Amino acid sequence: MNNINITQMQISLEKSLVKNLMVQNHYERYRSMGDDIMKSIQDKTCPGNDFLGWVDLPSTLKTEQLDRINEVAGNLRKISDVVVVIGIGGSYLGARAVIESQKSTFNKDGCEVVYAGHHLSPGYLTELSKYLKDKKWSIIVISKSGTTTEPAIAFRYLRNELLARFGETALKERVVAITDKSKGALRKLADANDLQSFVIPDDVGGRFSVFTPVGLLPIAVAGFDVYKLIEGARKMEKQIWSDTNENIALDYAAIRNVLYQNGNTTEVLVNYHHKFHYVAEWWKQLFGESEGKDGKGVFPASVDLTTDLHSMGQYIQDGKRNLFETVVKFQNTNAVDESIGHDDENLDNLNYLEGKTMGFVNKNAMEGTMLAHNSGGVPNLMLKIQNDEIDNIGGLFYFFMITCAISGLMLQVNPFNQPGVEDYKRNMFALLQKPGFEGRYKELQILRKELNF
Amino acid sequence: MNNINITQMQISLEKSLVKNLMVQNHYERYRSMGDDIMKSIQDKTCPGNDFLGWVDLPSTLKTEQLDRINEVAGNLRKISDVVVVIGIGGSYLGARAVIESQKSTFNKDGCEVVYAGHHLSPGYLTELSKYLKDKKWSIIVISKSGTTTEPAIAFRYLRNELLARFGETALKERVVAITDKSKGALRKLADANDLQSFVIPDDVGGRFSVFTPVGLLPIAVAGFDVYKLIEGARKMEKQIWSDTNENIALDYAAIRNVLYQNGNTTEVLVNYHHKFHYVAEWWKQLFGESEGKDGKGVFPASVDLTTDLHSMGQYIQDGKRNLFETVVKFQNTNAVDESIGHDDENLDNLNYLEGKTMGFVNKNAMEGTMLAHNSGGVPNLMLKIQNDEIDNIGGLFYFFMITCAISGLMLQVNPFNQPGVEDYKRNMFALLQKPGFEGRYKELQILRKELNF
Repeated sequence: MNNINITQMQISLEKSLVKNLMVQNHYERYRSMGDDIMKSIQDKTCPGNDFLGWVDLPSTLKTEQLDRINEVAGNLRKISDVVVVIGIGGSYLGARAVIESQKSTFNKDGCEVVYAGHHLSPGYLTELSKYLKDKKWSIIVISKSGTTTEPAIAFRYLRNELLARFGETALKERVVAITDKSKGALRKLADANDLQSFVIPDDVGGRFSVFTPVGLLPIAVAGFDVYKLIEGARKMEKQIWSDTNENIALDYAAIRNVLYQNGNTTEVLVNYHHKFHYVAEWWKQLFGESEGKDGKGVFPASVDLTTDLHSMGQYIQDGKRNLFETVVKFQNTNAVDESIGHDDENLDNLNYLEGKTMGFVNKNAMEGTMLAHNSGGVPNLMLKIQNDEIDNIGGLFYFFMITCAISGLMLQVNPFNQPGVEDYKRNMFALLQKPGFEGRYKELQILRKELNF
Repeated sequence: MNNINITQMQISLEKSLVKNLMVQNHYERYRSMGDDIMKSIQDKTCPGNDFLGWVDLPSTLKTEQLDRINEVAGNLRKISDVVVVIGIGGSYLGARAVIESQKSTFNKDGCEVVYAGHHLSPGYLTELSKYLKDKKWSIIVISKSGTTTEPAIAFRYLRNELLARFGETALKERVVAITDKSKGALRKLADANDLQSFVIPDDVGGRFSVFTPVGLLPIAVAGFDVYKLIEGARKMEKQIWSDTNENIALDYAAIRNVLYQNGNTTEVLVNYHHKFHYVAEWWKQLFGESEGKDGKGVFPASVDLTTDLHSMGQYIQDGKRNLFETVVKFQNTNAVDESIGHDDENLDNLNYLEGKTMGFVNKNAMEGTMLAHNSGGVPNLMLKIQNDEIDNIGGLFYFFMITCAISGLMLQVNPFNQPGVEDYKRNMFALLQKPGFEGRYKELQILRKELNF
C-alpha cells in the first residue's frame, strides 16, 4: 500500500449540521472507544473475528487474481449478449450496486447483466426465459453452500434451459460458479462438471464480499474496471488505517451511536444521484444485518432525492422525530451536466436559471433541504465524495464496511453474524416439509392452531 | 354503484398475528371513533375537507371520461414507440405503480412508458435523449402549477428536443398536458399552443390522484385497461361504504394507531411479488405525506421479499422492537407458475420440492416468515387480495387511500395537506436566487455562517 497518494481525501465527513443536536459527552465516550476497537479489528480479537478477511482485502488482492477475473469475464462477454447472475443477499447486492452506479440508465452497450435467484415470485423465470430466447447467454451462479433455496431453484431451472439451448458443452463454456473452496453442493457440482469456478473466502461474509469474485466477476462482465474499483478501495483502506486521529469512519460510527442513544433510531441514507439506488440497497443490508440484533440497532432506510422529497419529504421535515439523515454528495460527475435554456415566453418562470446547470440546481436543492430538515429537528450528516467514478465507489464501499464494523462494535453486538436469518428458514423448511424438519413442522401446527393462523 | 356484486370480498384483513401484541382497550377506543370519522368524510366536515374529491371518484367517473382517455392514449400509442411521462410525486407514482404491477419485467410490447422530471440528477436527460434518438416518441406532462422545478426543467428541455425532431406540429400531436382547469403556467401554455389536455380536479391532491387523468392516461398509454382498474376501485368503494361494521379500512386504521401508541412506530409494507415495488413506493408517499406531521406519524418503510429477507430480514427478526409489518398477499396470479423439476444427482437437495410450484414455495416462505417475525415480537397484519390483476390493484389503491384518510384522522392530523414540503422549496429557491426569495436568501446566509455550513 506504500505508493498510494492519499493527500487528497476520497471522502470527507461534514458534520456541522449534527453538532447542535448531539450530546457532547456521549460523543467523547464513543470516540474514546475508537483506538481499542480499531486494534481489536486489526488483531482479530473482536467478536466475529472469524470473518475479518475483508479488512485488508483491497491491499492484499493480487494483480494475478484480478487478471484471472478479467480474463474469465472477457470470455463470457465474447459469447454472451446477456449474463444471468444467480445469487441473493450478499451474493447479489454488491455487484448490482456497483454495476447500477456505473451503467447507462437506458442504453445497453455490450453485455447485459440480469439477475435471477433473488426471490421466489412466480412468473419471473418464465419472463426471463422468453427474454433470453433469441439471445446468446451465460450464467454466473453465486452461493457459498449451493443449497440456498432461491438461487438453487433458479439455477436448476436455468441450467436446464441452457443445456437445452446450447447442448452439453454449455456447462463448461457458459457457467461460472462462485462458491466455497471445498465444501457444499455447488462446489461438488462445479468439480463434477469441470465448471470454471472462483472461491468465496471462508473469512468473508456475504455482505462484506464485494471485493471478492462474488462482486468482481459480475462487475467485470458488465464491462467495468475492477482494477480501478480495487485501487479506490485500497486508497480508502490506507486513509482509514494510516491515521486514526483523522479517522472519519470512527467519527461517523461514534456520531451514529450518539444519535441512536438520543432516540434518533432510524437512519435515512440520502442521495441526489439517479444511479445510487442500489448502493443504498446494499448499504441497508450491510448496516441492517450487522447491527440489527439483540433488540438493538439503527433501522436503515433510504430515499432517492429529489424524487422522494415529493413523497417522504413531508415526513422527514415534520413527522415523528426519531430520524437522522446521512447525505451522500458527489462533488463531481462525469455525466453530461445539462444547461437550462432560454424561453421567450417564460411561462414556467425558469428564466432565472438560464445558463445554469442541472448539477447546480441539484446542489442547491440538496443544501436547501439539509438546512430545512436540520431546522425541523433532523440531524444531518454529509459524506462528500470526490466524484461518482468506480474508484470512488470502491472507496465508499470500503468506508461503509469499516464504519459498519466499528459502529456495531460500539453498539456491543457482533457485526459479523446474522443469527435471526435462520428463524424464518427453519419455519419455511418445516412448512415445505423438507426432510429433517419434521419436529419443527409439528411445533408450527400447534402454534398455528393456538394463533388461529 | 348499485349493480356491483360484492359478495366476494376483494380484500380481507388477517389479524391473528397482531392480537397477542395489541392492547384491547386501545383498539376499542380507536375503533369506536370509526362511525364519526366515516361520517365526517362523507359529509365533508373533516380537516382538509377541500380535498375529498377522490372519495367517490370511482363511482362517479363517467364512461365518456374513460372513453376520451382511452382515445387520446390510443392516438399516442399509434405514433409513439416511447411516451415520456413528465411528473413528480403524486403526478408520477400512481401511474408508475399500476404500470409496473402489470407490465413484463423484461419484454417490451407496444408502447413503452419512461419517466422524466422526477429528479434533478445531471446526465439523465442526456441519456434519455440518446435513447429516444431513433425512436418515435411523445410527451405527457403532468403538473398542477406548471412551475414545479423538476418537471418544468425536464419539459423545457424535452419540448425543445421534440420540436427539433418532429417540427412545429409536434406540440399539437405529441404533447398532452394534464393540469389545472384554468390557472397556472402549464394551463396557459396548453391553451396558447392548442395542446391536448386533461384537467386535475381542484379537490383531489396529488397522492390521491391515481383515478384522475394523472394516473389513467399514462396507464392507458402503457396498454392497460383503465375501465377494469376503475371497476375494481368501484367495487372496493362499495365494499367500504356499504357496511361500516365489516369495514376493513376502519379496522386496519384502528390497529395501526394502537400499534403506533404501543411504540411500533415504523410500518414495513411487505410483498412477495416481483412487480409490487412501485406500489410500495406509492404507498410510502400516501401514508408518509398524509400522517407525517406535527411531530407524529408512522414511518413508512417497505421490503420486497424474499429478496430482502437476505438483507433486512435480520433486523426485522431481531433488531430494535419498534416495527410492525403489513404483508400484502395475492391469493392468485395470472403469471405462469413454474414447477420445480427432477434432478438425478440432487446435489442441491431440492428433490423434496419436485413437482411443487414457485407459488407454493413462495407462499410457505411467507407464512414461515410471518410466524418467525411474530415470534420475534413484530406484529404482523396481512392483506389478502384475490389476485394481481388490474381491477384488484384498483381496489387495493382505493382501500389504501380510504384507510390512510381514516388513520390520519384517528391520529388527529389533517391527512390532506403537506405543509412541510414548502420548507425545503423556500430554501432551494433562495439559494438559487429566484426573484422574490431575497429575504430568505439573507436569512440563510446568516444561518449558514452560524452553523458553519
